[in-house]
Amino acid sequence: MKIAVLGTGVVGQTLAGRLAALGHQVTVGTRDPEATLARTAPEEGSGPPAFSAWQAENPQVELATFDGATVQAELIINATGGGVSLEALAAAGAANLDGKVILDVANTLDFSNGYPASLSVVNTDSLAEQIQRAYPAARVVKSLNTMNCQVMVDPGSVPGEHAVFVSGDDPAAKATVAELLSELGWPPSAIWDLGSLSTARGVEMILPLWLSIMRKLGGGEFNFAIARA
Amino acid sequence: MKIAVLGTGVVGQTLAGRLAALGHQVTVGTRDPEATLARTAPEEGSGPPAFSAWQAENPQVELATFDGATVQAELIINATGGGVSLEALAAAGAANLDGKVILDVANTLDFSNGYPASLSVVNTDSLAEQIQRAYPAARVVKSLNTMNCQVMVDPGSVPGEHAVFVSGDDPAAKATVAELLSELGWPPSAIWDLGSLSTARGVEMILPLWLSIMRKLGGGEFNFAIARA
Repeated sequence: MKIAVLGTGVVGQTLAGRLAALGHQVTVGTRDPEATLARTAPEEGSGPPAFSAWQAENPQVELATFDGATVQAELIINATGGGVSLEALAAAGAANLDGKVILDVANTLDFSNGYPASLSVVNTDSLAEQIQRAYPAARVVKSLNTMNCQVMVDPGSVPGEHAVFVSGDDPAAKATVAELLSELGWPPSAIWDLGSLSTARGVEMILPLWLSIMRKLGGGEFNFAIARA
Repeated sequence: MKIAVLGTGVVGQTLAGRLAALGHQVTVGTRDPEATLARTAPEEGSGPPAFSAWQAENPQVELATFDGATVQAELIINATGGGVSLEALAAAGAANLDGKVILDVANTLDFSNGYPASLSVVNTDSLAEQIQRAYPAARVVKSLNTMNCQVMVDPGSVPGEHAVFVSGDDPAAKATVAELLSELGWPPSAIWDLGSLSTARGVEMILPLWLSIMRKLGGGEFNFAIARA
């Protein structure tokens, strides 16, 4: 499948690398490819590698503008920061989004007031719904946003059965995402289809708790699970 | 321990009944005890029994005004609806709350706009913090709000290890709550002390997801768990 991954951060890198390794034709989209490639690594140990260093190890993944990445894509993954997602999708352009599945894995966490972080969209709306309203002909599915990106692409790295939630209004689009989740290693029983896209509010709203647990454990190698009678 | 349970609904009934069975001296607080006792049961199968019927089976639990229930209490459990909790605590009066542990299990779910429900306090504040600000000399601990009340008092009814979160600014108050959780059957490893009371925002914010899962499963006999590497 031709997949556009929007966003060059660690989430975009991790998803793009894994999907390319699974045989998909992946293009990462960014605002300005030259600027992305010119960016140097942050201080050692403080973040993901510079994109250029990452791409040197993942040469099968192309880099393009948001427009160039999405024009041929069959599936688009929004892995940009939640605060800039609408801007990134606007740069891709409605013509490149219409009719396509947009898998939205982003969160609108705002750390500008320190900890605890808040969400810039919350409660009576969600980022996923904002994207759907902005591009009514696209088929938005929210999923994977409730975990660290290493867990997204390697669910077996966390023992036991844990959950990935799926929200969306288009059943065929949700089936496409479920198939992709299956390729990433998610067993069918771990995939929780919550219903309509409005349920994305709930999955976006568990990020503050995710952060509290991450701080307590000292890392993101965990996931939410549902225990049931 | 002398415990006041504020709220005569199913959460208050369930907690009061179980804590009395454990040997605590429990008084349920309500705005108007006569009105509470006069209330008849809802349509069969549509809700908990009328309080009078419940009390007939739990005669060791007393009913009093918010004031009367809290005056002698060592620990106060807020099991009122989140939208009326501050009003209930005001009726109890600051003098009856000061210095005491207030275990807040309430949620501010607002169903007035249908489904999905929203929270009336969210994101940059929480009900628990509102209570703490209103009664700075009380020692507020948020816990147990992320599950069905049957699971609160009988964690073993859901198989496997699942989580109960604890948030609060007073370590001794959190230790008192942890001891109570232990009496209810929660193993130490299931008790997640998330830190300061501001982390109550995150645990209150998972209620919309809890509701989506409850609707999917058709009941509340489940709980969140943390799977980790």
